[in-house]
Amino acid sequence: VVVTSPLLQAVLDVLGTLVFAVSGGIVGVRKGLDVFGVLALAAATGLGGGFVRDLAIGAIPPAALDSVLLLGAAVTGGMLAFLLHVPIGRVERWVGMLDAVGLGLFAVVGAVKAADFGIDPAPAALLGMVSGVGGGVIRDVLAGRVPVVLRQEIYAIPALLGAALAVLAYETGTYGTATALAAVAAAATLRIVAMLRGWNAWHAPGTGRT
Amino acid sequence: VVVTSPLLQAVLDVLGTLVFAVSGGIVGVRKGLDVFGVLALAAATGLGGGFVRDLAIGAIPPAALDSVLLLGAAVTGGMLAFLLHVPIGRVERWVGMLDAVGLGLFAVVGAVKAADFGIDPAPAALLGMVSGVGGGVIRDVLAGRVPVVLRQEIYAIPALLGAALAVLAYETGTYGTATALAAVAAAATLRIVAMLRGWNAWHAPGTGRT
Amino acid sequence: VVVTSPLLQAVLDVLGTLVFAVSGGIVGVRKGLDVFGVLALAAATGLGGGFVRDLAIGAIPPAALDSVLLLGAAVTGGMLAFLLHVPIGRVERWVGMLDAVGLGLFAVVGAVKAADFGIDPAPAALLGMVSGVGGGVIRDVLAGRVPVVLRQEIYAIPALLGAALAVLAYETGTYGTATALAAVAAAATLRIVAMLRGWNAWHAPGTGRT
Repeated sequence: VVVTSPLLQAVLDVLGTLVFAVSGGIVGVRKGLDVFGVLALAAATGLGGGFVRDLAIGAIPPAALDSVLLLGAAVTGGMLAFLLHVPIGRVERWVGMLDAVGLGLFAVVGAVKAADFGIDPAPAALLGMVSGVGGGVIRDVLAGRVPVVLRQEIYAIPALLGAALAVLAYETGTYGTATALAAVAAAATLRIVAMLRGWNAWHAPGTGRT
Repeated sequence: VVVTSPLLQAVLDVLGTLVFAVSGGIVGVRKGLDVFGVLALAAATGLGGGFVRDLAIGAIPPAALDSVLLLGAAVTGGMLAFLLHVPIGRVERWVGMLDAVGLGLFAVVGAVKAADFGIDPAPAALLGMVSGVGGGVIRDVLAGRVPVVLRQEIYAIPALLGAALAVLAYETGTYGTATALAAVAAAATLRIVAMLRGWNAWHAPGTGRT
Repeated sequence: VVVTSPLLQAVLDVLGTLVFAVSGGIVGVRKGLDVFGVLALAAATGLGGGFVRDLAIGAIPPAALDSVLLLGAAVTGGMLAFLLHVPIGRVERWVGMLDAVGLGLFAVVGAVKAADFGIDPAPAALLGMVSGVGGGVIRDVLAGRVPVVLRQEIYAIPALLGAALAVLAYETGTYGTATALAAVAAAATLRIVAMLRGWNAWHAPGTGRT
C-alpha cells in the first residue's frame, strides 16, 4: 500500500470544494437568497459530500469543519458566485464543465481518503462516488428541487468511474499525481461528453418515454 | 446477552432492503426518472435507513457500503421496479403490504444490530424505528414530497412496536428466528390493519379536522 | 481546560430542545399533519441539530437517542404545539423570540460539547452553529420548504456569535452559568434585533434587489 501524498490530496480537495461552492452559490443567487444564504448554500454544496464521507469512514471531526483551507475554499467559491454570477452565467456551458471537473476531483479524493482509512476497495469506490454526488444532492434538496443526480442521465456513473480508477491505482501502489489526474480526467471527460452529446439513458418500459 | 445469528440478521436485512428498494424504484419511475435515477432512488431508499443507523451506532463503514448482499438487493429491487412497474402498479395494495413487511423487517434488524453494538434497550428500539422509517424519509425528500411517515396515520408506531418487541426478546435471551419473525409480523400486521381500516389519528384542535 | 458542569449543559439542552420542538410542531399543525406527524416533526426539529453534531464529534450513541430528558422535552414540545397552537399562534412574535433563544441555547451547548470531546476551538464554534441551525433545516426540508436559515437575513450569524463566545469562555477557563447565559443572550439578542428591525443582508449585484 502506497502512502498517499497529503499535499496532492489537499490540492485536489480544495479545488473540488471551490468548484462545487461556486455551483451552489450560483443556485443560491438564482433563488434570490441574500449574501448569507448564498454563502450557506455554497458551503453546504462544497463541503457536504466530504462531510458525509468522513462520517461514514469515521474521520472525526470531519475535514469540512476542521480544515481552514476547505472552509476558505467554500467561502471563496460562494463569494465568487455572489459577485460574479452575471459573467459566470454568460458562460453556462463552462460551469457545467467545471462541475464535471469538481465531480471527478471529489470522486478521486473521496475514494483514496476512504482507502487510506482502511476501507475495502469496493466500498471505497462507492464512497468516492457518494463524495462526488453528495454535495450536489444537499444543494438541490436545500434549494427545493429534485437532485440533479436523479434527473441527469449520466452523472453518478462518471463519478464511480473516477473513484474506481483511483482505488485501482491506490491498491496497485501506483497512485500519485499522474494517476490521480488521469482518474479525474476520465471522470470529467465522460461527464462532459455525456452532457455535450445529450446522451440519454433508458426510461422505464410503458411510461411513454424511451 | 444472546449471540445473534448473523445468518438470520442477514436474511432479514436483505429482504427489507429489496422491498424498500422496489418502493423507491416505483416512486422514481413515476417521477419520470431514467434507469440510473431509478436505481439511485431505489438504492437510497433501500440502504438509507441502515446507513443512518450505522452512523449512529458507530458501525464503520456502514453495511450499506460494505455488503455485497445489500448492494445487490438494492440494485435488484431498483431493476424490478424499472422493468415491472406496470404489473406492480396493478397490485398497488400489495405494494403497501410489502412496504409494511419491509418496515417490520428493518425495525427488527435495526434494533437488534443496535443492541449488538452495546446500545441500551430504549435507544436501541428507537434506532430500530429510525431504521424502519429512514429509507422512506430519504426517498420522499429526494423525490420532493413530504415524507409518508409524517402524512400517514399509523406508520412510525408499528415500526416502534416491532423494534421494541425485538429488543425485549434480545434482552431476555429469547431472540431467534421465531421471535424475530413474530416481531416483524406484529409490526407489519399493525401497519396493514391501520392501512386497510383507514385508521386516522387525531388532528390538532381548531384546525377544522378531526 | 475547565470541567463543564453536566447539569448546566443538560438544562440548556433540554430548554433548547423544548423550544425547537414547539417550533417544529407548529409547522406540522399548519401543514395539516395528525398527532403522530406533528410529534415526529417536532422531534426531528428538536433533536436533529444535536444528532448531526454528535455524529460529527463521535458521540455514540447520539444524545438524541440516549437521553430520556431530551426525548421527553421533544415529545412535550410537540404536544404543546399540537394542543395549544391557537393561543401560540396569537403570539407569533413571541414564537420568533423563543426560537431565537433556542438558537442561542443550542449554539452554546453544541460548541461546548464539541470542545469537551476534544474538538479544536474553530471547528467547535462551527459545530455549535450547525447544532443551532440544523434542527430548523431538517424541519423545513421535511416540511417541503427552503430552510429559514437560507432565506432569513441574520440567522446563522447569531448562532456563530453565541458559539464563538462559548468556546472563548471554555478555552479561557471561564465557562460557567454566567458566561453560558451571556453567550446565549448575545446570540438571542442579535437574532431578535435583526428580526424586529427587519435587517436585510445584501443581495447579489445585478439581481434587481439590494
